[in-house]
Amino acid sequence: MSGGRLQDDRGLHYGDGLFETIRFSGACAPLWDWHMQRLLLGCARLGLPAPDPAVVLRRARRLAGTHPQSVIKLILSAGSGPRGYARPLPLRPRMLAFASPFVESVPRLLHLRWCQMRLALQPALAGIKHLNRLEQVLARAEWSDTSFDEGLMLDTGEHVIAATAANLFVRKDGRWLTPPVDACGIAGVGRRWLINAVSAIEAPLDVAAVETAQACVLTNALHGPRQIGQLARRSWDVDRQVQSLQDRWRTLFSDGHPR
Amino acid sequence: MSGGRLQDDRGLHYGDGLFETIRFSGACAPLWDWHMQRLLLGCARLGLPAPDPAVVLRRARRLAGTHPQSVIKLILSAGSGPRGYARPLPLRPRMLAFASPFVESVPRLLHLRWCQMRLALQPALAGIKHLNRLEQVLARAEWSDTSFDEGLMLDTGEHVIAATAANLFVRKDGRWLTPPVDACGIAGVGRRWLINAVSAIEAPLDVAAVETAQACVLTNALHGPRQIGQLARRSWDVDRQVQSLQDRWRTLFSDGHPR
Repeated sequence: MSGGRLQDDRGLHYGDGLFETIRFSGACAPLWDWHMQRLLLGCARLGLPAPDPAVVLRRARRLAGTHPQSVIKLILSAGSGPRGYARPLPLRPRMLAFASPFVESVPRLLHLRWCQMRLALQPALAGIKHLNRLEQVLARAEWSDTSFDEGLMLDTGEHVIAATAANLFVRKDGRWLTPPVDACGIAGVGRRWLINAVSAIEAPLDVAAVETAQACVLTNALHGPRQIGQLARRSWDVDRQVQSLQDRWRTLFSDGHPR
Repeated sequence: MSGGRLQDDRGLHYGDGLFETIRFSGACAPLWDWHMQRLLLGCARLGLPAPDPAVVLRRARRLAGTHPQSVIKLILSAGSGPRGYARPLPLRPRMLAFASPFVESVPRLLHLRWCQMRLALQPALAGIKHLNRLEQVLARAEWSDTSFDEGLMLDTGEHVIAATAANLFVRKDGRWLTPPVDACGIAGVGRRWLINAVSAIEAPLDVAAVETAQACVLTNALHGPRQIGQLARRSWDVDRQVQSLQDRWRTLFSDGHPR
């Protein structure tokens, strides 16, 4: 479960692995179970032996102890192996863990842009948080202007899927919608929380559906729901429902949960 | 240009980088220039600063000197950076180089299977040899029966594209065809050599076109052209034209080229 010899790690050579980015408040990670469920689903999909969640939790907590609020990033790779796509037998996955302080983003309206880079349709890899992230990297590389907070990505079928590092929700006719993630995109833990919170339904969205929405929200497991204030030529005022969702999210990370 | 601190390498975290697998005969790599051309094309496509090919060659040759026939694998990653898809500025790519002895495969007929795993259509990443290789890894994981030498992959549009680690050529009506690699797949250096050698043309192929071909060949930069002898219920006898192509390939690696 340690760094070891990364030179021949299959995560480095092929992106053969998964990751999770988990927010801790002290030693507590309120959404821990959902992170572990997604990690184990990813293991099943990629054919990797699943780690023991209790062992992972102990390790993450030890690291989380170094900051009052922290972000623990876990990488579970297929481990070391000889050259070639064929995995070694037995497969010995490697877990890496990284801690950094969590920096609260001031709740404000986000400024977004549309990305040129498209997400390919690949049901076998959709939903899980695997290490093949060139699409997101190239989308994020489309801008360096710091006035933009994020970029929205479409798939190759011209459906809007997500921001580079957050899921998207839009409210239309009072109802919250979020794109399905069964052909591309990631089933975010923040997305799961928000689907529950607002009884959102999964629905395909095109550019016009987003730009004409009553409110648009990005969410991920670190920052929770954040409202989009500007996207291309459309702008939105602060939405009270989103504000109350942000309050609920903040509460989640402030009242000493059992874990 | 050395290992350094791989824990925060963007190759490991996101597959943000490229690789090349190059056959050396002593200090000579006859197809070196084509490997470098593809690597530089990959740099341009991913937005990575290009390495100096002369520096790369010196380093590869030093490593190649350890075996009479060797395989040099180069990884060029986007280097170290903080958490997040945004690349650091300035970007300092990291080059890793690995040497292993080259083991000649006895020229014989290959036994292939069809893979279930599909290649997604992603023109932005097609052709280049980037580090996001989960599709190939999962396709290769579909079999452990050592009687199979390789598996053929289709794209999500049901076109046959390539084997997991080799390009495909088929002869029909005396003419050699190979699938285009502009929506998925890799523009192999062995593919480039064989296109030149037999004046192959790029053409979409479906399963039936492959199974009814006069001869089918896999090729990559290590082993050159190798004939398929069995695929599903179809089998083929040794083809004399393929044998002569194998002789030409062997000559390439035996007569002390200038580099």
